[in-house]
Parts: sequence; C-alpha cells; structure tokens
Amino acid sequence: MSRWKPDAQGRLIKAAIELFSEQGYEQTTVAEIAERAELTKRTFFRHFADKREVLFSGSDELGTRWLEALRAAPAEATAMAAVEAGFDPLAELFADRLPFARLRSQIIAANPELQERELIKLQGLADAIKTALTERGVGLNAAILAAQTGVTVFHVAFARWLEQDDPRAFRRLMNESLEELRSVTAA
Amino acid sequence: MSRWKPDAQGRLIKAAIELFSEQGYEQTTVAEIAERAELTKRTFFRHFADKREVLFSGSDELGTRWLEALRAAPAEATAMAAVEAGFDPLAELFADRLPFARLRSQIIAANPELQERELIKLQGLADAIKTALTERGVGLNAAILAAQTGVTVFHVAFARWLEQDDPRAFRRLMNESLEELRSVTAA
Repeated sequence: MSRWKPDAQGRLIKAAIELFSEQGYEQTTVAEIAERAELTKRTFFRHFADKREVLFSGSDELGTRWLEALRAAPAEATAMAAVEAGFDPLAELFADRLPFARLRSQIIAANPELQERELIKLQGLADAIKTALTERGVGLNAAILAAQTGVTVFHVAFARWLEQDDPRAFRRLMNESLEELRSVTAA
Repeated sequence: MSRWKPDAQGRLIKAAIELFSEQGYEQTTVAEIAERAELTKRTFFRHFADKREVLFSGSDELGTRWLEALRAAPAEATAMAAVEAGFDPLAELFADRLPFARLRSQIIAANPELQERELIKLQGLADAIKTALTERGVGLNAAILAAQTGVTVFHVAFARWLEQDDPRAFRRLMNESLEELRSVTAA
C-alpha cells in the first residue's frame, strides 16, 4: 500500500489485502480483518457485504468515475471519444495505487472464484458503458462495440501497468493499447 | 429445433431445451430430461456433468472449430486474419441452429447463474484464442486484443442473428460487425 488511509473503509481494505497476501484469501475471516484494522465486525459489515467485496469496492469506484466522465463528454463526441473521456479520471484514480493493485491482482489470480467475480464486474462495467452510450443516442451495436473495446483496452493497459514501475504510466498505456487495437484490427 | 437428432446426446439436448422452455430451467430435473429423451439418467451422465452443461456443449464445439480454423490459417496471416479464419466454420455450425439458439438464449436470459456461465465460457474462448495466437508468434498484447475483438464481434453478430429470420445470415453479420467495430474505433 502506497499510503495509509485514515478512514475506516481504507483501513479495512488495507488490513484485508495484507491478510489475504500473508495467509491466503480462503484462510482469512472477517473477524481477523476487523481486528487487524482495529475495528469491529459490525463496522466491517457497515462497509462491505462480505470479505470478497473488499477486493471489489475499487471496481465500483472505477465504474462510477468512468460513467461520470462519459456522460459529461460533449454531445457531438463520437461513441469512442465518449468512452475515451473516462481515461483521464481512471488514470488519476490509479496514480497512487500501483502497490495495492499488484497485491490485489496476485490474490485474485490465485482464486478461480475471485477471477470469475472480476470478470463479471468487468462485464457489468461494459454493460453500464453500453447503456450510457445508448442514452446519448448511439445505436445499440455501436454502443456494445465501443463499450467492449473500451473495457478490453482498459484490461490490457491495466495488466501492462502492473508489470512496469511507473505508477503514472497508466494513461499512456491506455492510449498505446487503443492504438494497438486499431492496428491489430485494421483491414 | 429445426431437425431431429437421432443420437443420444442430440436427443438429450432437444429434451432439455423443450423442458426448460416449457416449465423453466430451475424446475426441470435430470430424471425428467432423460425420460423425455427416452433414455436413462445413467446415459445422461455419460454425456453431461449436470443439467447446466446441456446448454453449453455447443459452446465447446464452437471453440473447437474456431481454434482448428485459426491453427490452420497460413503462417503469414495477421493475428486478426487468423481469428477471422474461424468465421466460416462458425457460420456453417450455426446454419441450421437458429430455432434452437433462440430457445437457448431465452432460457439463459431468464437465469443470472446461466448468464454468468455463458460469460465465463466466452472468456474461456477468448483466452484459448489468445493462447493459440501467441503459439503462432503473435505478441501477448496483440493476441489479447485480436482474441477479445473476435469474441466481441461474435457476440454482437450472434445477438443480431437471433433477431432476424435468415438462418444463413450469420457469416454476413460477422463481417458487418467487424466492419462496424473498425468504424467505431477509428481515430
């Protein structure tokens, strides 16, 4: 974790990631997470439905920021430009999270149930982007294709970001991945 | 179902789809499926692990055909051309399955667990295509992007195919969806 978060939710996330990394996801209980964060189980359940959701609160925040930026894009922006409007806020969101994101990624990679959850969250994000695009007047097929492309580009850029050492490289990697997608799919 | 399949597996699939459509997926038992197909439960379990898998044997066949065609593509084919090599065999596979595919799609749309399973199967297909591309010497990022694009194009074309009346339109819809993806993502 690159910085200590003083809020209860941040402390619970930090404690959970530490424990999942130290002793495994399956072996860690909510009671242990609360204890490590010096909070009660009751406080834990005010913030998260279960221990799995601790790993996915960031995914919800990501989706919220991306959709806000998409909805704020100029009315005349193309579908893809509206999707790309989310790239700057995403890069800001991730700028100080590289060590956290790496630990989280290792925990998820070790557990098929968490991988499925991650996949379902990403698909939920693509569906939400699709819906937001159709609300801007984009046709259904174009909306699905632009949304899915945005999420694919995010997925590739995110994996590359985890494997390099500059926390601020995320924005550039998003651009590069979109360029590479254009190049790969060129007729 | 557009035609009656005389083999045990085909009869079990037909019986299951009929029963799921008539009385719901949750309410249908393996015993009922076997009875409708005039086969034993033992025969059912020789072909399928459980009633859910009856709906996904076609997904496995789709993946097998796509990967065969990809691997048989000329060595000098681009990543995307190798992915597109699967479009013809997929179109052949689907040519006589429109009524079946429609019923199946309705059953899956009514059940979140089946939707998740469908999503995981599609992602498994994208992963398998990615791996087959890297085995041809395609770089990892390009392989992920081409594989994911292929599956996205398939997904969009499939949904459009279900909504129109020409069972043989699948190949054209794959081309149109890829063209639309290129147009949507153009800089």
